[in-house]
Amino acid sequence: MNKKEIYFDNSATTRCFPEVAALVSKIMLEDYGNPSSKHRKGLEAEKYVIRTGEQIAESLRVKPKEIIFTSGGTESNNMALFCAAEARKRQGMHIITSAIEHAAVYKPLDRLAEMGYEVTSLPVDGKGHISLEDLRAAIRPDTILVSIMYVNNEIGAVEPVAEIGRIIKERNPGTLFHTDAIQAYGKVRIRPKEDGIDLLSASAHKFHGPKGAGFLYVDERLHLKPLIYGGGQQAGMRSGTHNVPGIAGMGLAAEMVFARQEEYVRKIRGIRNHFMEMLRELDGVRINSEEGEDGAPQIVSASFEGIRAEVLLHALEDRGIFVGSGSACSSNHPGISGTLKAIGLPQRLLDSTLRFSFSIYNEPEEAEECVRTLSELLPMLRRYRRA
Amino acid sequence: MNKKEIYFDNSATTRCFPEVAALVSKIMLEDYGNPSSKHRKGLEAEKYVIRTGEQIAESLRVKPKEIIFTSGGTESNNMALFCAAEARKRQGMHIITSAIEHAAVYKPLDRLAEMGYEVTSLPVDGKGHISLEDLRAAIRPDTILVSIMYVNNEIGAVEPVAEIGRIIKERNPGTLFHTDAIQAYGKVRIRPKEDGIDLLSASAHKFHGPKGAGFLYVDERLHLKPLIYGGGQQAGMRSGTHNVPGIAGMGLAAEMVFARQEEYVRKIRGIRNHFMEMLRELDGVRINSEEGEDGAPQIVSASFEGIRAEVLLHALEDRGIFVGSGSACSSNHPGISGTLKAIGLPQRLLDSTLRFSFSIYNEPEEAEECVRTLSELLPMLRRYRRA
Repeated sequence: MNKKEIYFDNSATTRCFPEVAALVSKIMLEDYGNPSSKHRKGLEAEKYVIRTGEQIAESLRVKPKEIIFTSGGTESNNMALFCAAEARKRQGMHIITSAIEHAAVYKPLDRLAEMGYEVTSLPVDGKGHISLEDLRAAIRPDTILVSIMYVNNEIGAVEPVAEIGRIIKERNPGTLFHTDAIQAYGKVRIRPKEDGIDLLSASAHKFHGPKGAGFLYVDERLHLKPLIYGGGQQAGMRSGTHNVPGIAGMGLAAEMVFARQEEYVRKIRGIRNHFMEMLRELDGVRINSEEGEDGAPQIVSASFEGIRAEVLLHALEDRGIFVGSGSACSSNHPGISGTLKAIGLPQRLLDSTLRFSFSIYNEPEEAEECVRTLSELLPMLRRYRRA
Repeated sequence: MNKKEIYFDNSATTRCFPEVAALVSKIMLEDYGNPSSKHRKGLEAEKYVIRTGEQIAESLRVKPKEIIFTSGGTESNNMALFCAAEARKRQGMHIITSAIEHAAVYKPLDRLAEMGYEVTSLPVDGKGHISLEDLRAAIRPDTILVSIMYVNNEIGAVEPVAEIGRIIKERNPGTLFHTDAIQAYGKVRIRPKEDGIDLLSASAHKFHGPKGAGFLYVDERLHLKPLIYGGGQQAGMRSGTHNVPGIAGMGLAAEMVFARQEEYVRKIRGIRNHFMEMLRELDGVRINSEEGEDGAPQIVSASFEGIRAEVLLHALEDRGIFVGSGSACSSNHPGISGTLKAIGLPQRLLDSTLRFSFSIYNEPEEAEECVRTLSELLPMLRRYRRA
């Protein structure tokens, strides 16, 4: 990595651990068998897949057979939503979600709405939290599914998942609970069995694993039909030749993250808090993320009065600092952030907001350098704008 | 790779090109940006994706925008079938396929049949070819889709794709033509525009690219809904963060294969023909694949009288020779091969059949070694069996 680069776009994607890249490469060249093959090269490959199942299951305190490997977080979310909706449609066609979900949740839900399902979207408060009272009131006898994200990708709000799970099961034990944990996995403590989570999505490239690999946790009591049919891999739940290098890389990345999770989270949160404190000193900056220990450790959303986000993003880029504009995953909807609107950000700031997201590859000095650069750029850009 | 290993299971999966593994690794560690990010690291990553689109499109003489990147051949097939069926259901609900499709085609079609579509399965002759007369007779005004594989994965039969395409368009210009080209891509000449192919599936790990990457060619005139919804990547047709290392690796593998395609195919076909000639000398061996230039260059299916395939597979494995049993992708259906039944293989041979599949990493001497080993093993295994 170029020494002069400061990469603060870790919620878009992270750099792979070198150990992960080395393992991926080894498998591609040496242990390249197809796990479905019956000879030794198949068995060797299968061992990697089994090992990853154990690594992921251990991190969540669930069973390996409850982990389904997918091509990433988007497929995991699609599978959870379409397959749960299909499986439960005889019990009802009502689904509850929040106003700040990622497109990989709200777009499948839009499609389900087209197909005749009724989708209730819960509003959020100024920090991005749903109201538990709203949730309680929304759950009906025909509510088959609640999908609420664990950590919001744009502002880092952490939803009260344990309480959500408890309320769902109290109100309607037949209602399934899916959570998009793509920004949460590795960053916050996740215990599906304690928290009433039936389905949970994650993506390897958000925690220094390979792109093209993710998983869906599915509680073993659920009986879903697959989204993708074929050779019957993964107990028929997700067919297709296992992406062995990607799966093994994801397992190793998870193991590495969870082996030092406390230390890593402390470091990242330290950078985030330091960054927020310094940012607060600048004029005309509004921080949209929660302060202190409540928000996710890795995300700071900030709005810059009188400055277009895109202009600031490129000015930072010119200084070697890479940040996010809203959500990188909404590339086709520039400037339109459902989350920022939902938290009530004033209209004039919607297009003036950037996301700074950190990983263990960052250092506090980089946060200082970034704020120093911002302190130079902001007055300059505001001056140009007035001219 | 262990020098003593002879890998003849290349239709299950291939070893990655070292150049591909190196590129994947470089991207994971250096050019790890998210193509949806608006800064330079995103643009760098996007360039790899664009380049692969060009490489694949060039190999098929189609447009880059007609290539959709998927997680592999199974997803490509599922997307083609489910999305075409959904898009055309107002015109009809009749689908035609063959009796020798891979599970990644017939399982989605089973599901479509559950959903109310009518599926006609065309029989094949002793070499695995459908009858063009049967096809012509089967096409009706309400036939919305024909899905016939290009090269069969178990015996290497090459279907008459150009004629199929011509007949479909003659009989019903509204009928879409999908072909599973997973075993064909890189091995035979494929020209969707000449052959009336509307949808074509391929998978990178079958041609020395990475697992977890594939593509679907979709004729630009088609308007399908996606299978997987989300952030709107790939013009909304396949959301999810691009698997940049996998996509770039696939593009490089395609470029490398097509740069020397003639030479590669000649080498592989040479090994196959040599292997078949030698195999024919052995007692009690039936070759199920086409002879000469008509069959696919990389696949030989052979049945061994009086020997259980699994026993022979493991005996070969003990000598360092890795071969396939039926289709490796049907791991959950051991011994049940639709293709072998469909070509009329006698019942007693169904469970006595192995697949030998070659790649450019193989040498003629390996084929000789394999046949020599078979000539030792076959009498021995038959003697044990009688005892």
